[in-house]
Amino acid sequence: MSVMEISHRSKDFEPILESAENGIRELLNVPENYRILFLQGGASLQFSMIPINFLKTSADYVITGAWGEKAVKEAKKCGNVNVIFSTKETNYKSVPEQDELNFSQNPDYIHYCSNETIDGVEFKYDLDGKGIPVICDASSNILSKEIDLEKYALIYAGAQKNIGPSGVTLVIIRDDLLEKVPANQFSMLDYRAIAKNDSMLNTPNTWGIYLISLVCEWLKNKGGVKAMQKINEEKAKILYDAIDSSDGFYSGHAEKEARSLMNVTFRLPNEDLEKQFVTEATANGFDGIKGHRSVGGIRASIYNAFPQEGCEALIEFMRDFTNKNG
Amino acid sequence: MSVMEISHRSKDFEPILESAENGIRELLNVPENYRILFLQGGASLQFSMIPINFLKTSADYVITGAWGEKAVKEAKKCGNVNVIFSTKETNYKSVPEQDELNFSQNPDYIHYCSNETIDGVEFKYDLDGKGIPVICDASSNILSKEIDLEKYALIYAGAQKNIGPSGVTLVIIRDDLLEKVPANQFSMLDYRAIAKNDSMLNTPNTWGIYLISLVCEWLKNKGGVKAMQKINEEKAKILYDAIDSSDGFYSGHAEKEARSLMNVTFRLPNEDLEKQFVTEATANGFDGIKGHRSVGGIRASIYNAFPQEGCEALIEFMRDFTNKNG
Repeated sequence: MSVMEISHRSKDFEPILESAENGIRELLNVPENYRILFLQGGASLQFSMIPINFLKTSADYVITGAWGEKAVKEAKKCGNVNVIFSTKETNYKSVPEQDELNFSQNPDYIHYCSNETIDGVEFKYDLDGKGIPVICDASSNILSKEIDLEKYALIYAGAQKNIGPSGVTLVIIRDDLLEKVPANQFSMLDYRAIAKNDSMLNTPNTWGIYLISLVCEWLKNKGGVKAMQKINEEKAKILYDAIDSSDGFYSGHAEKEARSLMNVTFRLPNEDLEKQFVTEATANGFDGIKGHRSVGGIRASIYNAFPQEGCEALIEFMRDFTNKNG
Repeated sequence: MSVMEISHRSKDFEPILESAENGIRELLNVPENYRILFLQGGASLQFSMIPINFLKTSADYVITGAWGEKAVKEAKKCGNVNVIFSTKETNYKSVPEQDELNFSQNPDYIHYCSNETIDGVEFKYDLDGKGIPVICDASSNILSKEIDLEKYALIYAGAQKNIGPSGVTLVIIRDDLLEKVPANQFSMLDYRAIAKNDSMLNTPNTWGIYLISLVCEWLKNKGGVKAMQKINEEKAKILYDAIDSSDGFYSGHAEKEARSLMNVTFRLPNEDLEKQFVTEATANGFDGIKGHRSVGGIRASIYNAFPQEGCEALIEFMRDFTNKNG
């Protein structure tokens, strides 16, 4: 029988779940006082589960793009939300420095999204909550670089960028936060109950978890997150260099200090050229390169699984395109 | 790229989602005024989502086993629950006749589980709500037989028994129920928002949905649900016949009228023999045959994918076992 056919309660599935969990623990250096959970519903369900469980008085939210905005929208259905920093007015091109953040008086937690896929902006540091629990949506950059996990009380990620297939959500949560889950919580929204049952409160996405265990093995064989970070930095660097050395034909959307290692967003001189670029790039095998309609232009998503050669091929295509149309 | 690698927003995924949806619609004869949704979180999340969205004043629940009990536990966190019928006192061996059910005055809905996996009892009819919306957990028998879908306002099922891999929940919901979703609902718990976005409010379990489309094709090639029902009836019949003709060596847990086509539960003369049966059966390739600890004994789960030959082999094993130990 394949992993898709065996019972999640069978002895065969146990070591798979354990291997996925240990893989994440090893790769991200997760301390003993954190639990690693595999949930369903994506980051979007976390946008609700987090305030449902932890927003008692008020929470601080930092918004640097569309995902942070969505998280705020859900949290507001639950209680008091302080948007302590937003770059919406400047079109989500930057991220704040740590010392630009002024937390409220005793919020229940601080929430931010460490990489915004649509805008291509990324935090280059682990936000320091100064004693306030930090909750982070790392859906699109987890496992792409080293992080200081102890800075976070809860870090979560939809699996489908860097961890595995869609349909699994990784949640890493500190023990003391588990204790804050209200009594009589709905079981499937109850982090404590899920932790207590080792992610098997009900049938988990067994196939997804199996693939996560394989991705962890792959990453470890590559040299782990540290080695992956070097590769990702190099991949991003050559793309941003191509943009910066194009004499203004290509212009990056994000400010240089905030440039994402995962999503490279840029514009061309006009929309007609952007359309032509997308059409020709697609014909040349670069799929899904069109920017989100809210930003426009081009977006190259270069997650862990995207190889350096792909970036090199894209740069060559970009140079050819400039030569013909610049 | 494989289905696991393409974007759920890509043109390649659209026909996959459509094919899964159309497959379910055709197989279950789903009328136009019902929406077919693919969610995450399993039936267990539905245990909460249903009362969260639809329990306003009170709801009627019928309990014929462990799953119905769990559904009640979650609903009670939300509001008034009337357990209008329970077979708990008689150890979950039977299901009520339609005319044994006395609904409350104007409940928001009636909830029941049409097949209880642990106890092996199954409703042989589609419950008639007489105007009250009927909500049914059909996780373990959907697609196993013909049903009159119009009897239900909402029918749901975790995919992992008869529909596809774990990590997808099928929800079929009537339009008028969608209108009852409260305003300002959390997005991922909001049936209406999910329907409006064609199950793509966020990234769905794309691989799971792809496999559902393949399972639907397989079922259609087999002759659809009607043909599958005949096969399932034959599979169950030969097993129950083997129990009934064993001179009391094997005894069925469920009353004859309530016997499940999907889960055949039975006991042996004593627990030592049951242990021995499980050990020898497992050694002979019959995996996962041990009954749930709450019922004890043996449970043969013979879902759609389990072939007639498997049942025949099991019967042969049972006869051998009786000859040696009876």
